[in-house]
Amino acid sequence: MNQSGRPRVVIVGAGFGGLWAARSLAKKPADVLIVDRNNYHTFLALLYQVAAAELEAEDIAYPVRSILWNLPNVDFALAHARRVDLENRIIETDGETIPYDYLILATGSITHSFGVPGVEAHAYGLKTLEEAVVLKNHIICCFEGATREADENGRSSLLTFVIVGGGATGVEYAGALSELIHGALVQDYRSIDFRTVRIILIEAADSLVANMPEPVRRYTIERLRKMGVEVRLGAKVGEVIPDAVILRGQENIPTRTVVWTAGVRGEPIAGLSGFSTEQNGRVPVLPTLQAPGHPEVYVVGDLASIKENGRPLPMVAQVAIQSAVAAAQNILRQIEGNPPQPFRYRDRGSMITIGRNAAGVAIGSRYYTGFLAWILWLVIHLFNLIGFRNRVMVLINWAWDYLLYERAVRFVFPPEMPSPSRACGPGRKRERSREDAP
Amino acid sequence: MNQSGRPRVVIVGAGFGGLWAARSLAKKPADVLIVDRNNYHTFLALLYQVAAAELEAEDIAYPVRSILWNLPNVDFALAHARRVDLENRIIETDGETIPYDYLILATGSITHSFGVPGVEAHAYGLKTLEEAVVLKNHIICCFEGATREADENGRSSLLTFVIVGGGATGVEYAGALSELIHGALVQDYRSIDFRTVRIILIEAADSLVANMPEPVRRYTIERLRKMGVEVRLGAKVGEVIPDAVILRGQENIPTRTVVWTAGVRGEPIAGLSGFSTEQNGRVPVLPTLQAPGHPEVYVVGDLASIKENGRPLPMVAQVAIQSAVAAAQNILRQIEGNPPQPFRYRDRGSMITIGRNAAGVAIGSRYYTGFLAWILWLVIHLFNLIGFRNRVMVLINWAWDYLLYERAVRFVFPPEMPSPSRACGPGRKRERSREDAP
Repeated sequence: MNQSGRPRVVIVGAGFGGLWAARSLAKKPADVLIVDRNNYHTFLALLYQVAAAELEAEDIAYPVRSILWNLPNVDFALAHARRVDLENRIIETDGETIPYDYLILATGSITHSFGVPGVEAHAYGLKTLEEAVVLKNHIICCFEGATREADENGRSSLLTFVIVGGGATGVEYAGALSELIHGALVQDYRSIDFRTVRIILIEAADSLVANMPEPVRRYTIERLRKMGVEVRLGAKVGEVIPDAVILRGQENIPTRTVVWTAGVRGEPIAGLSGFSTEQNGRVPVLPTLQAPGHPEVYVVGDLASIKENGRPLPMVAQVAIQSAVAAAQNILRQIEGNPPQPFRYRDRGSMITIGRNAAGVAIGSRYYTGFLAWILWLVIHLFNLIGFRNRVMVLINWAWDYLLYERAVRFVFPPEMPSPSRACGPGRKRERSREDAP
Repeated sequence: MNQSGRPRVVIVGAGFGGLWAARSLAKKPADVLIVDRNNYHTFLALLYQVAAAELEAEDIAYPVRSILWNLPNVDFALAHARRVDLENRIIETDGETIPYDYLILATGSITHSFGVPGVEAHAYGLKTLEEAVVLKNHIICCFEGATREADENGRSSLLTFVIVGGGATGVEYAGALSELIHGALVQDYRSIDFRTVRIILIEAADSLVANMPEPVRRYTIERLRKMGVEVRLGAKVGEVIPDAVILRGQENIPTRTVVWTAGVRGEPIAGLSGFSTEQNGRVPVLPTLQAPGHPEVYVVGDLASIKENGRPLPMVAQVAIQSAVAAAQNILRQIEGNPPQPFRYRDRGSMITIGRNAAGVAIGSRYYTGFLAWILWLVIHLFNLIGFRNRVMVLINWAWDYLLYERAVRFVFPPEMPSPSRACGPGRKRERSREDAP
């Protein structure tokens, strides 16, 4: 209990789960604290567009403190929560320690290498805003480097882009990358032969976007191939090295760019705090979303393994939002002395966008593909962006891109960000001949 | 000469000088190469607004390659030019070496510490896009840190912001910072007592914006003081240390934030290449803008010391643009076998903005202050931004800020950027008491 006499609810994570939990607790008899390592919420569904130089990082970020302006009982702490001391009901962070009466863990998921060697050191992730900016910088640098690279193999490796993982992120990024390269970059780099540019999407299973109905899966592959993306199904990555990706039983692909979207796992805080977790780091929760043995602790979103008919719910925004609201309501029930209620997920369908005028939508047993699905995708993503300003900015950037085939934010900025590979910056010394036409 | 048989003109620097030189050489009988360490042009006049979380970095940056889309004889190389080998007519970069027939040096200026100890290590610069983002991140972190800081002196030092230098940059940043803090941040940080926040503008001379007519100078000081900025004239900085700025003959000011805008000097390439330079690193040029003894080398903009009536022209955008155009035209004259012409600067006046509805403009012997000057400032800056998209984005951000008193981009992002001080991130361990209201 606080000085106020009201119980203190701490929410760790300012993703969809954390923000919706906070909203549900607003103006209720509780003192709420959101803890996140960043002072902004990231709209992860559009992260791949930042990595494709289509949106600015700021367009899909929203200052957490903005949601506090109208919520007098909610506060924010900028801190990296490392571990929960379940015994003493305290959260250990990189700075202060934070006590709680009720806890909602909503720290989400991180990239999962599945133990494939070289992924952490040499592959690009696409799970955080930093990673998206680093990847965007790297893509531009590959083209800048290719204009200066005299060796044909070196140039080809700079212009080969491998994306591992045929889920939504991999598919959407492959499509967006193809449009970036064959749209704006063709006009930027007149000295490059764009027929030598390769975008390769690698998937270990025998189809892309496995959660979609078969016609949408087929449509996805067809569209990607039409856009010049080489789709390789049933291909397994053995190792990532600085200059290539090594496939099991197939020829290696020389490349400077491996984007790893093949899997995610629960954020480490759960394992480090002594929760029993599944192999992928997720916490199996009770039907009420409480952690077993800790009725004051709720786990929601990607970090929670919420079973329905024996199968865990997918790691998507809708599960995060709905489970967070349910957890917040259960805490309010507990505060009032009532028992928490079991959570029921309401599936609202899923969607995938491949590129310009091309998307797939599945709702229940129905599905749609093509232009109308794409419009639906646009509207729903705009609607789900938090913040009116972000909606305006994203809409302008999309219109710009759609009408002018330009990508306005193709900057290598900030240049100092740590990156697995250096295609920009100090390179090999080479004499630029006076005979080279500029 | 190139394979094309046309002379090769290399432009080092993609600021106003470099871009206008390239435009003047477009579609002329020359092969033009722009070399810059960044792949974007930065509109420096609005840099302080990026550092005040008002604009996104991308809003004032423009991809250099975009200007090549319609200029078939212009190319770009992303490289950091270190030194000119005047003898062999070659530019040494961090990568390849680049030969030239004609050279336009337009690398601009960098921060000048005047040898004051601690400036380079502990003060924040405001001359590059990276520096602006680092400073913005730091300001937000000071407030985040202050919410967690129990010690009153520590909190006061986090909430004291010292700006050194009463020129345009210092004045404009002091005003923008005041509006950021007393606008959006007041609503973000309810636990902070904003009467303890101090913004101090330090100037060694006895007036601000010395190049302006006296009534504008007086107006500037009055407006800043009304906005809560402490203006200290005749104050000289002896040293900057991590926790304070040490003034000569005055009490030290404990602070975690010293922004150094007190002076600039020519970019190092001139000195490193053996040009004879003035004390501040600028190259005294002939009236034709040629470097003495090197008729194939032109120096323009901030890097050039262009004398008029015995006094060097100021380091402002108009001088850069006009001198670059003149240099390009002189090169075309030389290519045609004609002698270069002396450069004549046409003064178009100068302007300063202090804040909302408050600016000063001086044109010839006339001057204007207040709302109409501010509107004029807005229009001229929007007009001078390169790129229609940037104009739209800046206009939206300004309207947002003006109407809603919000700053939408107050993110600590990217968090990894190197910064002189760490107000965010791992701090002192401190037990947050259960009795602290959140």
